[in-house]
Amino acid sequence: MVDRPDPVVQAPTDAIVRVVLGCVCGSDLWYYRGESPHALGPIGHEFIGVVEDVGADVGALSKGDFVVAPFVFCDGTCPHCRAGVTSQCANKVIPGNNGVDGGQGEAVRVPMAGSSLIRVPAASHSDESMRSLLALSDVMSTGHHAAVSAGVNAGSIVAVIGDGAVGLCAVIASRRLGAGRIIALSRNPVRQKLASAFGATDILAERGDAAINAVLEMTDGVGVDCALECVGTGESLATAMAIARPGSVVGAIGAPHHIDFPVMDRVVYGNIGLRGGVASARTYIPELLPDVLEGRINPGLVFDFETDLDHVADAYRAMDERRAIKSLLRIGRV
Amino acid sequence: MVDRPDPVVQAPTDAIVRVVLGCVCGSDLWYYRGESPHALGPIGHEFIGVVEDVGADVGALSKGDFVVAPFVFCDGTCPHCRAGVTSQCANKVIPGNNGVDGGQGEAVRVPMAGSSLIRVPAASHSDESMRSLLALSDVMSTGHHAAVSAGVNAGSIVAVIGDGAVGLCAVIASRRLGAGRIIALSRNPVRQKLASAFGATDILAERGDAAINAVLEMTDGVGVDCALECVGTGESLATAMAIARPGSVVGAIGAPHHIDFPVMDRVVYGNIGLRGGVASARTYIPELLPDVLEGRINPGLVFDFETDLDHVADAYRAMDERRAIKSLLRIGRV
Repeated sequence: MVDRPDPVVQAPTDAIVRVVLGCVCGSDLWYYRGESPHALGPIGHEFIGVVEDVGADVGALSKGDFVVAPFVFCDGTCPHCRAGVTSQCANKVIPGNNGVDGGQGEAVRVPMAGSSLIRVPAASHSDESMRSLLALSDVMSTGHHAAVSAGVNAGSIVAVIGDGAVGLCAVIASRRLGAGRIIALSRNPVRQKLASAFGATDILAERGDAAINAVLEMTDGVGVDCALECVGTGESLATAMAIARPGSVVGAIGAPHHIDFPVMDRVVYGNIGLRGGVASARTYIPELLPDVLEGRINPGLVFDFETDLDHVADAYRAMDERRAIKSLLRIGRV
Repeated sequence: MVDRPDPVVQAPTDAIVRVVLGCVCGSDLWYYRGESPHALGPIGHEFIGVVEDVGADVGALSKGDFVVAPFVFCDGTCPHCRAGVTSQCANKVIPGNNGVDGGQGEAVRVPMAGSSLIRVPAASHSDESMRSLLALSDVMSTGHHAAVSAGVNAGSIVAVIGDGAVGLCAVIASRRLGAGRIIALSRNPVRQKLASAFGATDILAERGDAAINAVLEMTDGVGVDCALECVGTGESLATAMAIARPGSVVGAIGAPHHIDFPVMDRVVYGNIGLRGGVASARTYIPELLPDVLEGRINPGLVFDFETDLDHVADAYRAMDERRAIKSLLRIGRV
């Protein structure tokens, strides 16, 4: 942890947000482990907080507004934003990189604030609600993206590969979209229990071929309507593409690592589609927000470790050692 | 060419079809070149003909019916067929393989005939119409599948990679589905002309990076709404995934060969989906049939070489040497 100067408005489209809650993303561990270079101060691309100052052109927000930050800031006007694909904004900025400090600090300068931040209607928010609002920043939006990409709808038979925070949120999203059956692949008792609480109807501890055989047996050899790939390894992707029924689309959001099997053979000869990638959180958050505020979904339960900025290293360590699903950082007050 | 015994009904679900027109598929060239083993007699998975005999359980067809054969025979009752994905029927049979003679012969025994063959309403058919009916067997259905998989609809900006028979049919399909702009990638003057006749609004002779740059320039840097990959090489797939706009789905029907770039990086970090594979011709033909019969589409124009069974080797040679887009075989009379 280092001291940083208080951020100030630099452009008329900037806002300064005082961070209330931040957290650690699995991808932040790359920096923690020294596997990715990082020259700046605070990282962290997920946070909620209170607007402290706004530039002249940020008409949509005022000082005192309580906001959720999507994990990609966007201009709201480029062709990709207009198509709803804000994660690929022509001018996108990921906080904690690109010269912009992130949310694991006391305050953040948010560029393109009017088109990026989502104002939460004024209300007194319970701690439970606050944690779930924080989850909207990335993991809940990403789990939702996996489900939407795979076309989950009423009655769908879904399998979720991956029991990290995103996989667990994909269970929530599938349930929310009306899935009839949700098979969660997990061998961790704590995560199995959370998956069930989120709506998983079946838990499978198997992996690889054993998992494939089990899912095919559970579906009379047909496969699932929607396989959600929330890991990103070759094995998990191969599993997803083997249990997906022909004609279906695998919701693929896992960051790819060592994909060592012929993906296109499954796409073409197996009629298995692939769709997913980086979630357009800015597009999804307004849709998911009422469900959080009214308590219908509770993705904040993925935070099972918490500390403060003085102990941020503990937050990383707990995730790095897989003692925590996801670490929350209590940074400021509403 | 070899003599084969006249086929007879072996199962109550069989029909015997006297072939009128057959043709050579690009994939048949694998046998021609000796690159795939083939122990049977006639191959050829695309044909139209007249029903000569039916088994006791083929209620839907009678002797004398004029039929189009989809390139995959299916049972019509398995979960995949019921979902419309007949190309992945649990009991699928591809004629010219699996112990079933193909359509490059005088008569074919068609298993699961009632659920596979499509009856064409009785009428006198012009030669032009007959050729287009034959195209429904595979190439027109496959081009349609590419377009449907990529979600082509009214106003879409489409790019078709590949100027073979399927790529050209993908142009027809895109036009038929209402595409607003169709960019065909082709450097062959004959095929360029046909693509334009089929509805391509723009022809690009560039390949690789030059093609990518040209398409991005034509689309103000955004990319196309729907890229249709009708080749199957690493270069063509890389091109398709580079010119597809973020959030879109590449219609991928090219049989994969030497895919040597990280497909999943584009899927995840580029938000480019992939969907396609083996067309469910049995599902598509009834939908496309009226447009052929009423002359609104004319996919038979892809047949630019024709001969008879006595000269079948010429038909292969013309395609192998790339003198012909697709070779037609005149085998019998209606």
